[in-house]
Amino acid sequence: MGWMKDETGLEKTQANFVPLTPLSHLQRAAKVFPTSTAVVYNNHRVNYAEYYARCSQLASALIDVGVKPGSVVATILPNVPAQAEAHFGVPACGAVLNTINTRLDVDTVSYIFNHGEAKVVLVDTQFLPLAESACAKVDGKPPLIIEVPDPSAGFQSSGKYVTYEQFLSSGDKQFKWLMPQDEWESLALNYTSGTTGRPKGVVYHHRGAYLMTMGTVVSWRMQIFPVFLTIVPLFHCNGWNHTWLMPMVGGKLVCCREISAAAIYSAISQEKVAFFGGAPIVLNLIVNADQKERKHFDHKVEVFTAGAPPAPATLDKMEKLGFNVTQVYGLTETYGHVTECLWQDNDWATVTDEERATIKARQGIAMPMMEDITVMDDEMKQIPMDSTTQGEIMIRGNSVMKGYYKNEEATNVAFSGGYFHSGDIAIQHPNTYIQIADRAKDIIISGGENISSVEVEGVLMAHETVSLCAVVAMPDDKWGEVPCAFVELLPNAVTNERELIDFSRTKIAGFKCPKKIVFQELPKTSTGKIQKFELRKVAKDLT
Amino acid sequence: MGWMKDETGLEKTQANFVPLTPLSHLQRAAKVFPTSTAVVYNNHRVNYAEYYARCSQLASALIDVGVKPGSVVATILPNVPAQAEAHFGVPACGAVLNTINTRLDVDTVSYIFNHGEAKVVLVDTQFLPLAESACAKVDGKPPLIIEVPDPSAGFQSSGKYVTYEQFLSSGDKQFKWLMPQDEWESLALNYTSGTTGRPKGVVYHHRGAYLMTMGTVVSWRMQIFPVFLTIVPLFHCNGWNHTWLMPMVGGKLVCCREISAAAIYSAISQEKVAFFGGAPIVLNLIVNADQKERKHFDHKVEVFTAGAPPAPATLDKMEKLGFNVTQVYGLTETYGHVTECLWQDNDWATVTDEERATIKARQGIAMPMMEDITVMDDEMKQIPMDSTTQGEIMIRGNSVMKGYYKNEEATNVAFSGGYFHSGDIAIQHPNTYIQIADRAKDIIISGGENISSVEVEGVLMAHETVSLCAVVAMPDDKWGEVPCAFVELLPNAVTNERELIDFSRTKIAGFKCPKKIVFQELPKTSTGKIQKFELRKVAKDLT
Repeated sequence: MGWMKDETGLEKTQANFVPLTPLSHLQRAAKVFPTSTAVVYNNHRVNYAEYYARCSQLASALIDVGVKPGSVVATILPNVPAQAEAHFGVPACGAVLNTINTRLDVDTVSYIFNHGEAKVVLVDTQFLPLAESACAKVDGKPPLIIEVPDPSAGFQSSGKYVTYEQFLSSGDKQFKWLMPQDEWESLALNYTSGTTGRPKGVVYHHRGAYLMTMGTVVSWRMQIFPVFLTIVPLFHCNGWNHTWLMPMVGGKLVCCREISAAAIYSAISQEKVAFFGGAPIVLNLIVNADQKERKHFDHKVEVFTAGAPPAPATLDKMEKLGFNVTQVYGLTETYGHVTECLWQDNDWATVTDEERATIKARQGIAMPMMEDITVMDDEMKQIPMDSTTQGEIMIRGNSVMKGYYKNEEATNVAFSGGYFHSGDIAIQHPNTYIQIADRAKDIIISGGENISSVEVEGVLMAHETVSLCAVVAMPDDKWGEVPCAFVELLPNAVTNERELIDFSRTKIAGFKCPKKIVFQELPKTSTGKIQKFELRKVAKDLT
Repeated sequence: MGWMKDETGLEKTQANFVPLTPLSHLQRAAKVFPTSTAVVYNNHRVNYAEYYARCSQLASALIDVGVKPGSVVATILPNVPAQAEAHFGVPACGAVLNTINTRLDVDTVSYIFNHGEAKVVLVDTQFLPLAESACAKVDGKPPLIIEVPDPSAGFQSSGKYVTYEQFLSSGDKQFKWLMPQDEWESLALNYTSGTTGRPKGVVYHHRGAYLMTMGTVVSWRMQIFPVFLTIVPLFHCNGWNHTWLMPMVGGKLVCCREISAAAIYSAISQEKVAFFGGAPIVLNLIVNADQKERKHFDHKVEVFTAGAPPAPATLDKMEKLGFNVTQVYGLTETYGHVTECLWQDNDWATVTDEERATIKARQGIAMPMMEDITVMDDEMKQIPMDSTTQGEIMIRGNSVMKGYYKNEEATNVAFSGGYFHSGDIAIQHPNTYIQIADRAKDIIISGGENISSVEVEGVLMAHETVSLCAVVAMPDDKWGEVPCAFVELLPNAVTNERELIDFSRTKIAGFKCPKKIVFQELPKTSTGKIQKFELRKVAKDLT
């Protein structure tokens, strides 16, 4: 390959090789944009110099309580400033950030604590009961709880733990960050929602997150000093890496704890928010807001949406309100979005509104930092790009995880043949744009969260009356999809919808529980396989 | 560092690790923007599918004539499509691109042929005599000449060599590119202008060029589908890497063989050019264009300028015409620009025009892909950021060369202490912005006091009659050296030596004022850089 005849003295040095890491963005921002506003949340308003100092204090304080390079530090936090700071402060001491979904049940959180072996966990006061119960179930030493109260949202400190601000103040503002010496070092640990059994721990490397931020700026048409609203939870693929991106462009990160139409419109109008990401349910909130929740704004707001194609009517309404919606696609394993439905105005300037909505419903093409994203058949051959043939979306590029933590077998399966196997079924159009035909069949996407039908089925199957069951997605105006369960009872067993739903609530998070239970014989193939596609048709008619 | 307790199975794989290279941008563009216009030059107009196919043919044809991975392929070309294609086609066969300055003398070109050992050279018909004479002086086997005629500019094929189009047509459009297996492989070999002795061969790696393209998009506020005009020669730091950048954003590369005000205005008006880079001399061309050369345009044109600070009066005129000028700074060793005078509108929205020009005369801060660019004293300690203390600009980051080819000693000196030593003397302002005081060799030492020639030039440039000026040391019996100014006046402007010296006395200390003013056209390099060494000779004879 491209090695010259004589490469003597051309090796990597400190001057010309620096491991790629998103930490570099904040270090630079603190120097070049020190007075620019970095993070905003209610009365909390810090500039880049302050943001950097707070992250330095966090890193320093973590070392003081025994966190070592390679240790895991967890969070159970909504999108508050402490969560943003953890994205820099945790890796700044060489540790690995494990943001945990605040809506998980105690069992799953304790599983994550056991599996990831977190040394410390930052917990919002609202989620202390969850954290405490999960800690109680940890096999060895549970993580040290640092409490993050949020009086502005009505969550006063419990008084039982060191608070986040006390913890910060014990740290050194001048702490010299421990930058990665190898860009392949681990940066974050994100647990999947566990489509088949236990969640898997997806490990991110510094290099991938850095390149994700560089590519996203391009895809999002983002310029210097953007104003960004955190709607996607930061515990979800680290909020698609947007928090790591912002300092590169001196952006203002506006935190949003509770997502509502009023909160979104206020942030757009008052803080001049011009960028956010969110599931289609967020778009629905915006277009269905009543008059008193709406606020006027004059600037264009760029929206990334993912999880499901936006409905044509919603798209149309969004655009008339001043939003430009781009669909993106990705998975936890790919740091969030890795494809974009890039709008090519030079080719599509004159399409009808209907064609426009049709195009925008596609997942699109590889973002600039990715090498190859395409659709392949079972033998890993490219499928015909004929808008009809189905295959699996396959992903190769630098924003793909290192692998699953302590699960080499699953990692090898996921990466077999040199591509990450997404598990999502798609067609490909002649212009190479990808369109998902069918989500990996057992996943239900409710309010942007993945719910494993297998997990819900497992819960129901544990009930003494249930013989067999299948859970599928039922369309829902508010959540996009909700779980609907079809159940065959054991002979002579008696139960009812209410009892089964209540039972599941004792086992799993509320959002995962079925919203509807149908008692009927399940349609099966000759080999006894349940025909879920038939049940989806039934569920659709139920709404 | 950030290695987790158990990293089994988390090694790099084909799925999650792809060597960074700008070649990826064109591979992606050919898939996702196949019908978008890629390269324009007179009647030559190709889209991305065609551009990719032509580069593939070039790579394939090069292999057929014996080019191997690691071989050097040279060019002696103006900014025509073949030069852009060489930027992809040469590395696509694993070879290293050596773009040679078309204005060099025969001796230097033969030195470069000998030193770089080019196997093939693409030569514009205009520069055949230069190439032939240089080949005649090569010690071993001279490079194979492929002739690039340009009938549209009056250069018909000589008939003596295989032409570029014949050569391409012998290549395979479907050729599978040899992508780097290691991002540290060599991509390009660029010889410095060699102000002191023989030119040095600066070697670029794929990683550096890739990251340069990612950072430049951000600094240049560039969005999807930009239209870019090649004014900076592609043989100069590979045109600041802009050719490698364009496919990432589906940009249109408009080639410009001869730089004139009329050509620039036409490209802006007809092709809607919105981005170009150029030395301040190019800005002078634009603002001094006469009425019949000018064309109307409504869009903002973003200009990167480097080499010297733009004069306040020029800046003011440029902005009124619709150009936004940003000063950038870098060297051949840093792939071109690595700092930018980033305009911070949130802090500077209300500054006066004079303050604005003062700020814009600075070289600024590190671009997003760079790790640390600052000013240090002789002991490599950070200088005080007091706008006064001088030191050397030191550069650390991923867009720094691998080193000098076959010159380990010079490489080690350049990288000593973990930074690339720029050789440029600068001050630093309290906001960290860097401002060049002078090249070390351009400092004038008068009566033991350092005088920055750049400062004196800035004063003279503010005079209403001055179009361009350069200040150098003139030997003086009493003071050792005194400043001597060489001045080009604006068309029809009238002034004299006395008036300019008196004017400078109202602005700076007496000892800094020029003692002699010479009115003449300034000698310039092919890239528009003023050749101060020529002026020093003149000044020496004046005493």
